[in-house]
Amino acid sequence: MNQEQIVIKSALDAWTTYISRTGTLIQSLTDEQLQQPVAPGRNSGVYLLGHLTAVHDGLFPLFGLGEKKHPELEEVFLTNPDRPDPKRPAINELREYWDQVNNDLLHYFSQWTVGEWLQKHAAVTDGDFAKEPHRNRLNVLLNRTNHLAYHFGQLAFLKK
Amino acid sequence: MNQEQIVIKSALDAWTTYISRTGTLIQSLTDEQLQQPVAPGRNSGVYLLGHLTAVHDGLFPLFGLGEKKHPELEEVFLTNPDRPDPKRPAINELREYWDQVNNDLLHYFSQWTVGEWLQKHAAVTDGDFAKEPHRNRLNVLLNRTNHLAYHFGQLAFLKK
Repeated sequence: MNQEQIVIKSALDAWTTYISRTGTLIQSLTDEQLQQPVAPGRNSGVYLLGHLTAVHDGLFPLFGLGEKKHPELEEVFLTNPDRPDPKRPAINELREYWDQVNNDLLHYFSQWTVGEWLQKHAAVTDGDFAKEPHRNRLNVLLNRTNHLAYHFGQLAFLKK
Repeated sequence: MNQEQIVIKSALDAWTTYISRTGTLIQSLTDEQLQQPVAPGRNSGVYLLGHLTAVHDGLFPLFGLGEKKHPELEEVFLTNPDRPDPKRPAINELREYWDQVNNDLLHYFSQWTVGEWLQKHAAVTDGDFAKEPHRNRLNVLLNRTNHLAYHFGQLAFLKK
């Protein structure tokens, strides 16, 4: 491995570690547990599950990998806060979406070369990217890993 | 910037972002708020502040930068769980230690070359590092950033 490959391995290891930890936690929680707020007055487990899935689903268009798999999640879990919503998918569907979205992403992530990781993401113009070359896919991956860890720390409170 | 420098900028930006967010949150909380558990039956804010400071303080020896600044934190905030402890420093001391440790670390982090970031850390033998070159300082930084984000997500619950 050369230096760039070493660094990308570290970043990808961190991502897969938190995807795996979060997946294991979600599997260990019953639907009833997931419906509870993670702390008094805070988001429910199911909202955070939908929120994380929606954010990760957004990586497909951001990384030029096609459309979102579940664009309907955006309104329920990104635009709006946690609230009773007839558009909210059933928990077993959300569990499936979590697996599907993250497995599909990993299919790409595990194959990308250094050059592919350092390509610009779709939210940056060519002109801005020329000036700010760190606004690449890898940078997004690091930020999304931290976002995942942030909410995983909250989801952990559902475990008694 | 070359490719390695671009990647290191991303990793360091993520670290400083979460250090800054956590510092701003801590400053905005009163001592009384910090003494509350972040959720019922969970760690207090002051314990998490001490815990994060102790973990970051451990980066000095791990990165070959000398001794810990506050080795006394280890027993109170790493070895033992949150509990009444006469050895626990006062909150205003912990606030100072947080700033001191993270400012001192950033002094080094902001100057390191790519080669310095990719050096092995002290917990890896030369033999293991030859086989697993990703066990370097940068890898530790990524993991500590995620650890920080994990607990920052919990500390955020102290904000009403």
